[in-house]
Amino acid sequence: MKFETNDTIVALATAHGSAAIAVIRLSGPNAFKVVETNFYSKNQQKKQISNKDSHTLHFGLIIHQDVIIDEVLVSVFKGPNSFTGQDSVEVSCHGSPFIQQQLIQLFLAAGARSAAPGEFTLRAFLNGKFDLSQAEAVADLIASNSAISHQVAMQQMRGGFSNKIKLLRENLVNFASLIELELDFSEEDVEFANRNDLKNLIHSINNIVQKLVQSFELGNVIKNGIPVAIVGKPNAGKSTLLNVLLEDDRAIVSEIAGTTRDTIEDEITIDGVLFRFIDTAGIRTTTDVIEQIGVNKAFEAIQKSAIVIYLFDSHEISSGDLKMEIDMLQEHIGTSQLVIVANKIDTENVADLKKEFSNYPEIIFISAKTHDHVKDLKSKLLELFDARTVSATDTIVTNARHVNSLKNVNSALEKVLKGLDENIVADLLALDIRYALEEIGTITGQVTTEDLLENIFSKFCIGK
Amino acid sequence: MKFETNDTIVALATAHGSAAIAVIRLSGPNAFKVVETNFYSKNQQKKQISNKDSHTLHFGLIIHQDVIIDEVLVSVFKGPNSFTGQDSVEVSCHGSPFIQQQLIQLFLAAGARSAAPGEFTLRAFLNGKFDLSQAEAVADLIASNSAISHQVAMQQMRGGFSNKIKLLRENLVNFASLIELELDFSEEDVEFANRNDLKNLIHSINNIVQKLVQSFELGNVIKNGIPVAIVGKPNAGKSTLLNVLLEDDRAIVSEIAGTTRDTIEDEITIDGVLFRFIDTAGIRTTTDVIEQIGVNKAFEAIQKSAIVIYLFDSHEISSGDLKMEIDMLQEHIGTSQLVIVANKIDTENVADLKKEFSNYPEIIFISAKTHDHVKDLKSKLLELFDARTVSATDTIVTNARHVNSLKNVNSALEKVLKGLDENIVADLLALDIRYALEEIGTITGQVTTEDLLENIFSKFCIGK
Repeated sequence: MKFETNDTIVALATAHGSAAIAVIRLSGPNAFKVVETNFYSKNQQKKQISNKDSHTLHFGLIIHQDVIIDEVLVSVFKGPNSFTGQDSVEVSCHGSPFIQQQLIQLFLAAGARSAAPGEFTLRAFLNGKFDLSQAEAVADLIASNSAISHQVAMQQMRGGFSNKIKLLRENLVNFASLIELELDFSEEDVEFANRNDLKNLIHSINNIVQKLVQSFELGNVIKNGIPVAIVGKPNAGKSTLLNVLLEDDRAIVSEIAGTTRDTIEDEITIDGVLFRFIDTAGIRTTTDVIEQIGVNKAFEAIQKSAIVIYLFDSHEISSGDLKMEIDMLQEHIGTSQLVIVANKIDTENVADLKKEFSNYPEIIFISAKTHDHVKDLKSKLLELFDARTVSATDTIVTNARHVNSLKNVNSALEKVLKGLDENIVADLLALDIRYALEEIGTITGQVTTEDLLENIFSKFCIGK
Repeated sequence: MKFETNDTIVALATAHGSAAIAVIRLSGPNAFKVVETNFYSKNQQKKQISNKDSHTLHFGLIIHQDVIIDEVLVSVFKGPNSFTGQDSVEVSCHGSPFIQQQLIQLFLAAGARSAAPGEFTLRAFLNGKFDLSQAEAVADLIASNSAISHQVAMQQMRGGFSNKIKLLRENLVNFASLIELELDFSEEDVEFANRNDLKNLIHSINNIVQKLVQSFELGNVIKNGIPVAIVGKPNAGKSTLLNVLLEDDRAIVSEIAGTTRDTIEDEITIDGVLFRFIDTAGIRTTTDVIEQIGVNKAFEAIQKSAIVIYLFDSHEISSGDLKMEIDMLQEHIGTSQLVIVANKIDTENVADLKKEFSNYPEIIFISAKTHDHVKDLKSKLLELFDARTVSATDTIVTNARHVNSLKNVNSALEKVLKGLDENIVADLLALDIRYALEEIGTITGQVTTEDLLENIFSKFCIGK
């Protein structure tokens, strides 16, 4: 990754493959010149774009050695009023991979350089268009695949999280300045701040930090989906149930022609919340899971999940069997939440069943085959996730890097508190405070290293 | 497919999948209104686009029920100065499949309709932006995957082929009017045109039609690749050779970061010409192909190919064996062209080999292992294709529909010529001429049916 911004970069910005159109993006001081090298009007006269207004579109031909490569639409963005803050051009061409290649090759020949992953966003960050956590949210936004992960990324991109961090930082800076003042006058043995007030201040800062750290558990499932395991005997109907849930989800998606979701097997969005079903193949192939505690793989799946659905065939299991199996499961389920589901009610009298299993009033009775009451199961899953915990005003940390920094801030602040309790000298307190400030600065990018930036932006896609 | 153009259509125009950006395209009388329904300024005030100049770009937010769906760039195109000839909008959003879906859903809710495949291009055609053969070339251009197929599609899209067809049509119309004039005055037994002059006119028209029909053989290989079969004994090095050719091709492609070609196994571009290698698996698994005439599958592959490469291991085959094998091949090769290639020269003295096989001076000596002289083989392949036959001024028919129409024109004109020879009455001549005119009119779309349009545009991608 290069951290200079004085050359001009080029990359395909739209997804790979054949389509109606594709967009090639350029940014840098020579962006206009590079495109102008091969840009011609409809009647094949050289055409300028550097003399055009910002935010205007221009039809023309890209010609190389008398061969027309494509008819294109060129968007002109003049720095600093562009995404990167630099002069930028977007060339909208016919979406043929061959044409995309030809055009990029011409732009490279005219002096541009292939952009590294995330390099456009890196330039926007380096030019002060947004801070580091906002830049990271751009990638999260593109990767978001549910309403909630989308909203959390959008909030972060628009600065919600940054503002919270800035406020924390300001409070810490205030605290630091009080301590540093003491330090400057340390020989005079002056105490500028009441130690109890200082303690309260750090306490309240640390409370916010801790809440943010705690929010990561939620942030992580929002981003990656809530892990769910479906367990049960082989004939209980696990695959049928999973297929019914998947079908419902995909039916919603496929209503809109022209869009596809990168469907990952066993991911389901219910009311904007992503549930990720963990492969319990190990369970499926075993004749009787619950009675075979030795099936390590199956129990691994259970331990990785936040929710365990125990599915049974309401014809096949007696009330006594059920008790035994559930007791067995409970032993291995840890902190996961258990949902008991009776399947195949299409051929049974539900009232009779409810009577039979009256020891478990929480059982959800469904028929995966006829889709009957599957929506009750969905409601239950949503209820367990408790979507109400996420409100637009909450700040939720979804980024492992951020939570690590916040954890470091947290331990530094604990040290400060301990130091205040023990009445240690101000310069030792100042050390921990400075460390906390530096850690918090890495979140928004006020403190960065090239390695850190390299690490963050290399995970972006090319063209972003 | 709907042939009305008074509603507003919407579709994703860029390739599916995650990327930096995606573009959603709208066209129709309400295109501006549909987007304005959810379009807001940065500080969340309603923002108009219908009052903006054509060909301008506007940053804003798409907001639905107080939830920010995305930050977008909106391109405004006012009819008739747009691709479709109608008011059009292109919304450039973050390239997340989730966001693409959300935005399209909002535009549908605001009154747009999902576009059918090719419907934007259909509207451009219906609004007289270009003729039917030009519209078809748009799809060919997007599908083009070699320099030559790209150039032929570009020429057709820009009207090169249409102009040729128009000229043919004008000549036929002239001829028809002479005949119809005779018809009007038929009772007076007047002959307005010299029958010999008429014959010459039809002859010269038919010559052009025949040349166009003949050009399809070339047009077809330009579009779909020149079929090549590599045959030879299992240890001759066929796979190694194929891999060397593929590697070279992909190495060129992969130099440009950010683009991928939809690589199809066994397709190779040499100097802009596409060669398509036909699976000769049947040959590979047989111990000795050439001596086993019963291997039907292998000979099918040979018969489907325009070029057959016979590859042999220069260590393993004597001059006598070679003669036998080549004689055998010649019997089955039909009109394909044979290229004899001696492999594994890395461990042999080439001068000695040339002496040994001096009966076959056309043999190309290579080493697939060390890549030695593989470029000689490439030159040979290009030479056989004879790229010189394709010049920018030539009109080449690449479309099966067009060649069918031209064949029908040809037979109608043959009938006219026969009629002129046999001095048949003008009204019978007129019938055939009218048929020829109608057929020629279907090429450029002066004569169309909804079925024809449906058939053509349904093969387009959505969003084009």
